[in-house]
Amino acid sequence: MSEHQIVGKPLPRVDAREKVTGQAIYGADFRLPGMLVGRFLGSAYAHAEIRRIDTSRAEALPGVYAVVTAADLPRGEHYDAGSRAHAVFAGDRALFVGQPVAAVAAEDLATAQEALRLIEIEYNPLPAVLDPVQAMDPSSPVIQHEGPADRSEMDVHTQQAADVKTLEDNENDNVVNKVDFEQGDVARGFAEADVIVEHTYRVPMVHQGYVEPHSQTALWDSSGRVTIWISTQGIFDVRERLAETLGLSASQIRVISTEIGGGFGGKMALFAPLVAVLARKAKRPVQLVLSRHEELQASNPAPLSVVHLKTGVKRDGTITAIQGKAVVDTGAYSGAPMTVICIMLGQAYKCANVRIEGYEVLTNKPSVTAYRAPGGPNAAFSIESQVDEMARAIGMDPLEFRLRNAAEEGTMQPHGRAHRRIGLKETLAALRPAWEDAKRWKQEPGDQWRGIGVACGGWEGGRGPGVAFMVLDEDGMFRLVCGVVDLTGSHTSLAQIAAEALGVSPARVRVVKSDTDTGPWAPMSAGSQTTYGMGPAVQEAAADARRQLLRYAAAYLKTRAGKLTLADDQIYVTDKPEKHVTLKKMYDLANGWSARFKPILGRGTAPRRQPAPSFAACVAAVEVDPETGKASIRRLVAAQDVGQAINPLSVEGQIQGGTVQSVGIALWEELAFDEQGTVRNPNLLDYRKATAADLPFIQTVLVNVPAGDGAYGAKIVGEPSIVPPVGAVANAVADAIGARVYDLPIMPERVWRALAARG
Amino acid sequence: MSEHQIVGKPLPRVDAREKVTGQAIYGADFRLPGMLVGRFLGSAYAHAEIRRIDTSRAEALPGVYAVVTAADLPRGEHYDAGSRAHAVFAGDRALFVGQPVAAVAAEDLATAQEALRLIEIEYNPLPAVLDPVQAMDPSSPVIQHEGPADRSEMDVHTQQAADVKTLEDNENDNVVNKVDFEQGDVARGFAEADVIVEHTYRVPMVHQGYVEPHSQTALWDSSGRVTIWISTQGIFDVRERLAETLGLSASQIRVISTEIGGGFGGKMALFAPLVAVLARKAKRPVQLVLSRHEELQASNPAPLSVVHLKTGVKRDGTITAIQGKAVVDTGAYSGAPMTVICIMLGQAYKCANVRIEGYEVLTNKPSVTAYRAPGGPNAAFSIESQVDEMARAIGMDPLEFRLRNAAEEGTMQPHGRAHRRIGLKETLAALRPAWEDAKRWKQEPGDQWRGIGVACGGWEGGRGPGVAFMVLDEDGMFRLVCGVVDLTGSHTSLAQIAAEALGVSPARVRVVKSDTDTGPWAPMSAGSQTTYGMGPAVQEAAADARRQLLRYAAAYLKTRAGKLTLADDQIYVTDKPEKHVTLKKMYDLANGWSARFKPILGRGTAPRRQPAPSFAACVAAVEVDPETGKASIRRLVAAQDVGQAINPLSVEGQIQGGTVQSVGIALWEELAFDEQGTVRNPNLLDYRKATAADLPFIQTVLVNVPAGDGAYGAKIVGEPSIVPPVGAVANAVADAIGARVYDLPIMPERVWRALAARG
Repeated sequence: MSEHQIVGKPLPRVDAREKVTGQAIYGADFRLPGMLVGRFLGSAYAHAEIRRIDTSRAEALPGVYAVVTAADLPRGEHYDAGSRAHAVFAGDRALFVGQPVAAVAAEDLATAQEALRLIEIEYNPLPAVLDPVQAMDPSSPVIQHEGPADRSEMDVHTQQAADVKTLEDNENDNVVNKVDFEQGDVARGFAEADVIVEHTYRVPMVHQGYVEPHSQTALWDSSGRVTIWISTQGIFDVRERLAETLGLSASQIRVISTEIGGGFGGKMALFAPLVAVLARKAKRPVQLVLSRHEELQASNPAPLSVVHLKTGVKRDGTITAIQGKAVVDTGAYSGAPMTVICIMLGQAYKCANVRIEGYEVLTNKPSVTAYRAPGGPNAAFSIESQVDEMARAIGMDPLEFRLRNAAEEGTMQPHGRAHRRIGLKETLAALRPAWEDAKRWKQEPGDQWRGIGVACGGWEGGRGPGVAFMVLDEDGMFRLVCGVVDLTGSHTSLAQIAAEALGVSPARVRVVKSDTDTGPWAPMSAGSQTTYGMGPAVQEAAADARRQLLRYAAAYLKTRAGKLTLADDQIYVTDKPEKHVTLKKMYDLANGWSARFKPILGRGTAPRRQPAPSFAACVAAVEVDPETGKASIRRLVAAQDVGQAINPLSVEGQIQGGTVQSVGIALWEELAFDEQGTVRNPNLLDYRKATAADLPFIQTVLVNVPAGDGAYGAKIVGEPSIVPPVGAVANAVADAIGARVYDLPIMPERVWRALAARG
Repeated sequence: MSEHQIVGKPLPRVDAREKVTGQAIYGADFRLPGMLVGRFLGSAYAHAEIRRIDTSRAEALPGVYAVVTAADLPRGEHYDAGSRAHAVFAGDRALFVGQPVAAVAAEDLATAQEALRLIEIEYNPLPAVLDPVQAMDPSSPVIQHEGPADRSEMDVHTQQAADVKTLEDNENDNVVNKVDFEQGDVARGFAEADVIVEHTYRVPMVHQGYVEPHSQTALWDSSGRVTIWISTQGIFDVRERLAETLGLSASQIRVISTEIGGGFGGKMALFAPLVAVLARKAKRPVQLVLSRHEELQASNPAPLSVVHLKTGVKRDGTITAIQGKAVVDTGAYSGAPMTVICIMLGQAYKCANVRIEGYEVLTNKPSVTAYRAPGGPNAAFSIESQVDEMARAIGMDPLEFRLRNAAEEGTMQPHGRAHRRIGLKETLAALRPAWEDAKRWKQEPGDQWRGIGVACGGWEGGRGPGVAFMVLDEDGMFRLVCGVVDLTGSHTSLAQIAAEALGVSPARVRVVKSDTDTGPWAPMSAGSQTTYGMGPAVQEAAADARRQLLRYAAAYLKTRAGKLTLADDQIYVTDKPEKHVTLKKMYDLANGWSARFKPILGRGTAPRRQPAPSFAACVAAVEVDPETGKASIRRLVAAQDVGQAINPLSVEGQIQGGTVQSVGIALWEELAFDEQGTVRNPNLLDYRKATAADLPFIQTVLVNVPAGDGAYGAKIVGEPSIVPPVGAVANAVADAIGARVYDLPIMPERVWRALAARG
């Protein structure tokens, strides 16, 4: 790493100041003159025919500019009623509680809410099904909506999944997608096993929990063009969804991303068509900001899963068979990361005999979408609990058991693809000191039961492509322009990559976000791909700008480019430093009236990369109160193979953030639906996220198995850290209480019940 | 021209719809939440010490957020008090009536105006000088301001002027710049002459007359960055001026151009620092829109000039000597196009003996700036009147006299530079039919006196450099992004150049204007350089995008790029059209999850061009009412060498627009100052611009002497057309009345006086 000057240095975020001073304009802070307030009316039923909607009283209310329903939705050529993104409003049928049925635009919030109350909807309630296992039963009500079920785009793209069977109709049951992965012969594997472990693991729906709710504002002009200011992870994705849904061409849409207060996979284009339809009818700009209640009831959370696992192991520690069945609840529209869950159940360990079946099942709940390593926590809780039980059954240390079986280059995955070079073993090995330390901690005397756990898991991630360009400004600053949204500090990392390639300090690089009109294409800030996919484009744009600059400076200084040094604010002849030219002067020489050279415009276009899967592992130490069953986290050590940390401060923050979310999923989080499909805890007091007060300082261990395809060896970083901790915490609790909880979250009542079951 | 598919086709403007429907957002239409109204208080005196400013009563007025004066102006390292742009406020001394002395930001206009009334200023009036000839007299009051006089940037850059002597101090007179051009020996020239003609020509200050006044809005954030939305001809120029004036770095400034309602050279950064200072102090966004009164009293009009010409001619039509002295009134700050006027006096004709002296002189009037071919009408009125008198004196047809003497490639100009290939002769020759036709018209019977006139003149113009990039969008549209302001329909011409280079219809190209943050550098839309300077960059960006596209399509279709045809929405194998791929598909193949190729990003960076001077000529026919002396225009034919008209509709519109302005200068326009330096006609009823009702349909003749350096042979177009008509109209009036008016405008009273003088 020492060969880098800038890359690998911990730097504060370039946007830190505007964020801590409250200057950053988030979606809900954005204002347009004459802007109206948008609100929507959600379905009162989890499943119902909509017989009639009477909006006349709402329309007559003074201050109301528009009331819209499914009837107002123009259906373009590429409109797909089977897609949640496209099905903006419930049409003849409402499929989950809170699904938008109508929306209003009014001059203020009070008027908008009053207008919603004046909308009369005649429902014919239908039997609803909320549990995916029950939904697979032939006697269950079947959820039918217009349009075919989709295969999850996440499934298609974020992992190299094959053999997904999209079921053409769901007339007889609610299964919309199915996989069946088979490697070797599980029957033979079980026959070879000394011990067989078999359990069912249940993970509830959880919400991504971004602090800022979905916020979007739309403005139309008379030529039929719409501009959307939106808190989103991907401006070009919003443009594409809007075009498909509203039957517009991309050139009729401009998408500008406001600052974003978290996304974690859940902030794409979900409510953009709704606000666009409202604004078109109102003939005024309209802003729609979801309430927390709406977020938790009617956005797009992570899926519930029911995973049945049967595994065999020999006394020597060899895993002989993994057989699994994953039922993944996708809510009312398809799109769950079911395939990913199935792959991940057999991805981290060598095993010759694997059979995984997966079912993506419709229920009358909000449809799901990505949440940081989509499906990763669902898979990790299941397989990492199971692996711990195997290790325990044969009396092997759980870390050593994992190291013995850890996947490596060439290990076959359930879907028949061999692993490329991965750093799972290195990452597990890097945790040995923390694990030994945890063992010592466990021996210390105390009032509570102590337990320690370890787990691992990885994520393949996205991989570009990327585009960026670079300009030299008149103050001698370099301006890097691209359209990616900065969710995680990625602008700071991109500035470092650019500075490294230019040979200047990162303070000399300014990163500017363009929009869908002014800038080149940009990938979504999703799939951990921002630094990995964009990095090479940024590196190329910077190197290109440097090349142009040195060529012109050489002409100006009457020497050759190879004889020049680019210091921070000037270029000089390396062995004659008195011959120099400032960057400001180079700007004058390349732009404007007195230009002698061409304006400097560095360009970087990087193709889609090879995948750069990153593996993580975690050691957790807990204390469980024997009186109440309450588990408290005492230690967390998270290791991850990051290839090369461009900005260690940012990478560590990412790892800590993913760990916090995973611990929350392990111990506290659940979207709790009542029997009518209504969320019982639609606020952040009752829906319990992990907070700083719940957690110790999270130690991080960075492992460097470089990705040849990333800028300076960087791999994907954002997602893997959410995968292992849920397993490590579950294993630590099991270690503490000597019993297992198979349903998340591991709340005190469940600990108490597990203890009771143990007897 | 037949080899082009798109270039040379008359196309309606791409922005026509948004303009005719009133959707375009001009500077004054722009709104920000919480925006305040900015107003400034202009000096009551043309010349005065400012002893004290008391703003306390204004500051105490409820609704006032800020009151600023020169004391609030941060003076950066590059601040130059001698520059009008930098001297935002009068400091110790006010130098012209209406010069900003203080400004306020208030919640509404009424409060702002009331606040201005509450500002108390103690002046000590000083003797003022308003006439530049008088200002050169040693007995005249001397105008002194802080900072040195500047050499006009226009003079430096827009013409290849040499030998300008900037006078270091103006303690003894008001002359700030001086030139003395000499070719050959004028004494010998006059000795050889058969006839000598000698006169003094006076052109008053005129205003550019853009419909939209200066409009600008500023917003600061807490990090010390300012965003300016401004009606300007050049966003990067505004950024540079603001940085210099306020001591900011360019990276602290974002400039976004609103739609612009005309500029003609007069809309740069003049009031940007003022509104920025106001907004910073007010801690709120502030908008400043000038009133028409302020525009006419205190913006930056075109210069008054007093030109003395003495010329010699032989009976055979040879011009033997041109001796001139130009006194150019620059107002209170230097920057007049004095050198340009001096060059133009001897630029259009061959003459072995030339001597031109020029003086740029300060007076207590608003400082001047560019107005379409800056100084061109001043020069053309003088020399073209003089040339007509020479032709008349030797009895030669004025058109043939001009053709005999017209400059051509190699002809030496006053400043010692030989003409490159120009099309002056071709342009004059192209007017022969119109001239013969006018002669016939003159013979027709009528009640009024008829006269016809011809004149010519040219302009060198700006010449880039240019930058643009091109993206393929998901609907198969090409998006051309650059930062140039569209004053004249240039976006339409750039779309045509791009479409030609791509090989698609212009409807498939969308031009998007970026700003100083999101886009590459862009030249000012000034000096007629937009299509000429940007065209090659656009052509290169389009050709580059096409190359990338065909290379990827070849890989996809398994063929070679050379075997492919790009039709409008698809690419096919030329001799196997059934093998094809749509542009939409190519987008999918180059962007996003399933990309196989790199995103398409065509880049064009064009260096500064060689100058592409364009010459124009005009035939005017007038009728003069013998009773009132009122001249009415009956015919106007304007010819111009445009190299290659990219969009003939737009080029003809440019020629007609320049002709209208020139006729206005000839007959009606004058900023009339009273003895106190106050404009007596500060409104558009009393300040008389030419209107459609005053004019016949203006016929245009396009001449094509291609510029090898322009896109498809295009030359500069915008400015030259304003040069000749002022001379042609003056000559036509002289022809009608048999006498000369030497002072513009040629109003009825002056016609009457000329007739009286003739006797």
